[in-house]
Amino acid sequence: MSMHSCHADNEALLPHGGHLHAAATCYGITLADWLDLSTGINPDGWPVPAVPPSAWARLPEDDDALETAARDYYGAACVLPVAGSQAAIQALPCLRAPCRVGVLHPGYAEHAHAWRGAGHNVRRVQVEEVNDVVAQVDVLVLIHPNNPTGVCFARDQLLDWHAQLATRGGWLIVDEAFMDVTPQHSLAPFCPRPGLIVLRSLGKFFGLAGARVGFAFTDAPLRAQLQVLLGPWAVAAPSRWVATQALQDRTWQETTRQQLLAGSQRLALLLTRHGLAPHGGCALFQWVHTEQAATHHERLARYGILTRLFDQPASLRFGLPGNESDWRRLDIALADVCRTEPDRVAR
Amino acid sequence: MSMHSCHADNEALLPHGGHLHAAATCYGITLADWLDLSTGINPDGWPVPAVPPSAWARLPEDDDALETAARDYYGAACVLPVAGSQAAIQALPCLRAPCRVGVLHPGYAEHAHAWRGAGHNVRRVQVEEVNDVVAQVDVLVLIHPNNPTGVCFARDQLLDWHAQLATRGGWLIVDEAFMDVTPQHSLAPFCPRPGLIVLRSLGKFFGLAGARVGFAFTDAPLRAQLQVLLGPWAVAAPSRWVATQALQDRTWQETTRQQLLAGSQRLALLLTRHGLAPHGGCALFQWVHTEQAATHHERLARYGILTRLFDQPASLRFGLPGNESDWRRLDIALADVCRTEPDRVAR
Repeated sequence: MSMHSCHADNEALLPHGGHLHAAATCYGITLADWLDLSTGINPDGWPVPAVPPSAWARLPEDDDALETAARDYYGAACVLPVAGSQAAIQALPCLRAPCRVGVLHPGYAEHAHAWRGAGHNVRRVQVEEVNDVVAQVDVLVLIHPNNPTGVCFARDQLLDWHAQLATRGGWLIVDEAFMDVTPQHSLAPFCPRPGLIVLRSLGKFFGLAGARVGFAFTDAPLRAQLQVLLGPWAVAAPSRWVATQALQDRTWQETTRQQLLAGSQRLALLLTRHGLAPHGGCALFQWVHTEQAATHHERLARYGILTRLFDQPASLRFGLPGNESDWRRLDIALADVCRTEPDRVAR
Repeated sequence: MSMHSCHADNEALLPHGGHLHAAATCYGITLADWLDLSTGINPDGWPVPAVPPSAWARLPEDDDALETAARDYYGAACVLPVAGSQAAIQALPCLRAPCRVGVLHPGYAEHAHAWRGAGHNVRRVQVEEVNDVVAQVDVLVLIHPNNPTGVCFARDQLLDWHAQLATRGGWLIVDEAFMDVTPQHSLAPFCPRPGLIVLRSLGKFFGLAGARVGFAFTDAPLRAQLQVLLGPWAVAAPSRWVATQALQDRTWQETTRQQLLAGSQRLALLLTRHGLAPHGGCALFQWVHTEQAATHHERLARYGILTRLFDQPASLRFGLPGNESDWRRLDIALADVCRTEPDRVAR
């Protein structure tokens, strides 16, 4: 195995949602008083029970029950647990010599950052360009459904793009961080195929972003390279234990899929009523394209409501409020910010 | 910042202690029936209370209370939390162009593995050679106290070696994974100094090996490079929360230092009584150099007692038993394996 030369052009860490400590300082609002809609994380995540003391005390072991639980949940034969899909996003660019990489744009920015940092030739690809670009790149990175636009692709289309890339030794990387509500669109069950890499995470749907557990699905040789690069004990043992239980909890998963779909529709309606009709979204967020994004972001923050602001294009991503009081609070703040009326009907 | 070309020669993960699932399968002894002395982890670690649900749900934030707690505990002005010192061990070799590296031998094997894997010229250094080798290398890696030999160095000696290396742009890396019982020997309070890198971990003394929390102490430029390389959210949020509480618990720390010192002396006496007088050790393990290491390892495993076997030199490392029944069990097994008498005095 060889890792390729990595030259990081950008020394800065990228901005992300979820920086509540920073927001609290910036706006002078105490931590507990914020409604954090900046992340796309399920606000009502899997309820974590007490973790066995041995999980804290002992080194993580690869041959616990996690991989079996993951294979069952994702319907995939091959799986490598990683410390959140972020760990795989950072590692994959080190496993290819410098090449041409197309990354869906707008899209989760860590992908382009990691490939560029590792010395690859990265181009941003608009959704309508993807089909033409496949022939011009060695690696194509898609976020599916896309974050923040919510764009989805047909499974046959994805498999066709993969086949084109694989013929030339290329890779299709599909980041399925927001796929759990629509498992029928996942490419995980098609793994392992050479050149197909699917990333999943327990951060969003399961609401376990703090645990840092994700999975890479790919063929055995690349999986082995990734494992060596990431090293032993990449995932904390309590996180492995919690992830195993969450992946096995089919009842919670079914209920939660329905709840998130309903919540997402409700959020789209609420935003629309305040003149912010979403341009896209999925079960865990809605995305609003507006020239006033920065102003709205700022004014909502003064209400203690943190959203995720994007510059290009100017847009806001709203995660789901968690309870009725949070829904009401968002409604009232939007009414002021957008100079519209709050909903007078109790929901 | 630039990362340097990394070529991993060795595709395999190294063997380690703590592989209880594998041992259980190999010896046909169920998991719960093992006495695991293979790791050097405190068997009576910090008692983890219930973790706040928000720690599982939210992305880890760099600006929580962990860094302050670590600065206070380690007495060091500069700190970077990492996912166990292993994360820093893997990353540091990527932050230098190929160079000459001396690694203490015998010693924790991941250091040499990581530097060799990244294309550096690595030589093993016996403890009596270190002083001469300093002038011949760019990077010197010491484990202090050493694992598994328990060798210690005088602080002034270490600072002198660091000064020699730093003059030439070299690094002294001191892995202090087993230092917590003897904080007066730590170099952490001397950081930041250019070229001095101290690694600490919560795995051993605090008995939180599953949490994957460690720290790198070094100067600001290298800390920034490490942080970019390791990426955002490197340490799980529940692990950060638990580590913060453990680092602040001075009462537990004081009591535990005394208990571990007493336990380690007791273990040395027990081994000596069975003809296995240790050749070295520290508060968390004893190290026995014997040509019969492999046979003893195998026979103890048949008793469900897992030790850590080293090939070069042939030796065994024994961690501390956790309770009186475990001490008795080890005594009886050693009596059979070494053809000696078990202790007849109840302790």
